[in-house]
Amino acid sequence: MNGNPASITPDGRHCYAVRVYYEDTDAGGVAYHASYLRFAERARTEALRYLDIPHAELLEQYSLMFMVRRIKVDYLRPARLDESLTVVTEPLAVGGASVLLRQDVRGPQESCALQTVRLACVKPGEGGPGRLPRRWRTVLTAMCNAARAPDRSPSQAEHDME
Amino acid sequence: MNGNPASITPDGRHCYAVRVYYEDTDAGGVAYHASYLRFAERARTEALRYLDIPHAELLEQYSLMFMVRRIKVDYLRPARLDESLTVVTEPLAVGGASVLLRQDVRGPQESCALQTVRLACVKPGEGGPGRLPRRWRTVLTAMCNAARAPDRSPSQAEHDME
Amino acid sequence: MNGNPASITPDGRHCYAVRVYYEDTDAGGVAYHASYLRFAERARTEALRYLDIPHAELLEQYSLMFMVRRIKVDYLRPARLDESLTVVTEPLAVGGASVLLRQDVRGPQESCALQTVRLACVKPGEGGPGRLPRRWRTVLTAMCNAARAPDRSPSQAEHDME
Amino acid sequence: MNGNPASITPDGRHCYAVRVYYEDTDAGGVAYHASYLRFAERARTEALRYLDIPHAELLEQYSLMFMVRRIKVDYLRPARLDESLTVVTEPLAVGGASVLLRQDVRGPQESCALQTVRLACVKPGEGGPGRLPRRWRTVLTAMCNAARAPDRSPSQAEHDME
Repeated sequence: MNGNPASITPDGRHCYAVRVYYEDTDAGGVAYHASYLRFAERARTEALRYLDIPHAELLEQYSLMFMVRRIKVDYLRPARLDESLTVVTEPLAVGGASVLLRQDVRGPQESCALQTVRLACVKPGEGGPGRLPRRWRTVLTAMCNAARAPDRSPSQAEHDME
Repeated sequence: MNGNPASITPDGRHCYAVRVYYEDTDAGGVAYHASYLRFAERARTEALRYLDIPHAELLEQYSLMFMVRRIKVDYLRPARLDESLTVVTEPLAVGGASVLLRQDVRGPQESCALQTVRLACVKPGEGGPGRLPRRWRTVLTAMCNAARAPDRSPSQAEHDME
Repeated sequence: MNGNPASITPDGRHCYAVRVYYEDTDAGGVAYHASYLRFAERARTEALRYLDIPHAELLEQYSLMFMVRRIKVDYLRPARLDESLTVVTEPLAVGGASVLLRQDVRGPQESCALQTVRLACVKPGEGGPGRLPRRWRTVLTAMCNAARAPDRSPSQAEHDME
Repeated sequence: MNGNPASITPDGRHCYAVRVYYEDTDAGGVAYHASYLRFAERARTEALRYLDIPHAELLEQYSLMFMVRRIKVDYLRPARLDESLTVVTEPLAVGGASVLLRQDVRGPQESCALQTVRLACVKPGEGGPGRLPRRWRTVLTAMCNAARAPDRSPSQAEHDME
């Protein structure tokens, strides 16, 4: 990783670089399947920070936090030790108390693990739903609109359908 | 092991006990969302061992292994530190080179994380599909038929639908 | 839990069974070196529960918790996927606000990872030291005295020395 | 992390930036103690790559790999969620088939976890010791000599002593 490991593309996609280390692999010789969820969570955290809506602020100012409510992962190509991957994150929909993201953990050529993640905005103690603050909603909706490009790849189309 | 933390119910469901330790939690105070995938993988391994079709034999005798191809998780109730959970595993469908499982990570009352997992049988090096050996298929199909009970819970029905 | 994977020996050693799953291994084909710390932490948790001094009680009744202050691990033999290991835990010394443990993660024949762990009793918020409650100290000291047997193995003797 | 997450200082110390994500924390609200071993392993991997002696080459050209033989960690200050840390890596001694490293996982002001790590160079299958290739030895010895500065901090001095 030489250079900025995070950036955002003109079409509203956030890119975050990760490397596959020994900790991420298993005895099968490739990345352990749960590792891609950790990569995606790092990328979400950095995407929010990049958009200037860091989750720490959500907690401190509004006593709210994001929780993963649903996740769906298509494992398309196993990543190997030492490989450099990019997590491409884009919001698909922004609701009153939830966000739907697509996160694609990609090698240079193709996707390794394509994920759809539904985050709920909740109150930490009780876990009940909390309304997403206006600023958060505005920023995420803007990114969402920017990303609404008609260029789903075949693997994305299949992922979305099933 | 000084005892047997696994068992199988008459209706073809395998039950496996896990405890939530510090390693499984995060700063949100509950189990980290990727931890449920680790719990489910432990339970799958023990279910196969219990059924006398351990994955080590698949690799050694047939040069085949299972890979997770797709996973879908509904997070329903966060598990807390020290909680005792049960992973209930049941096959939903057995194909020529794949198995579809439902795995429910449950507390005493209700589900914490309901998962559907598609495993592909592959050749380790190249990753191409490999035909599931006859004995594996027979055992999994028998369990699958035993489990084909019409008692899906509301959360399972919703999980399956979406 | 359908069985009891933990027990305590007459000479004050607590035994806890763990299995090596894919999540615990790395692309080197054996258990990842940090996995042994997770095994040891599970075993410590169960040892305290077994002794009826669970860490949850320490937190709830006394607003104290254990933190790892120092750890030393000798990696002696790599554990393989599917292997059954036993974590043998014994207190070596009990202080006013700390405990020193030896934890040996063993296969059937020999040690895989021999650990010495110093736990400090602290106040969660500030992290300052907290005095170990009398009952905790009594129980741990009793176990410590029971374990004071003169049978250190050569690898333990070498571990302690360096 | 904006900018190059890895660099090397004139006095032979390699610096690598890590961020504390949810995956690295536990219900105690701070980084889980085993997470620092993962941070250190990432930093070692990048240090070797930076020195142009990547571990992949060791495996492919010489059929050798590094294994952690011994690790000692002093936990000095718990790192919090979202914190940016630097892993400072320096070789302390280079032997025929082993390397001794000091790795300090630091916040902006002070050390969080100070580690000494002994790596053995081994043959993957059997695990027997393997002689470190000449080029590896030369590069590591040069870095080791550059780092031989008399400026151990008090916490390092105490760590080394005990």
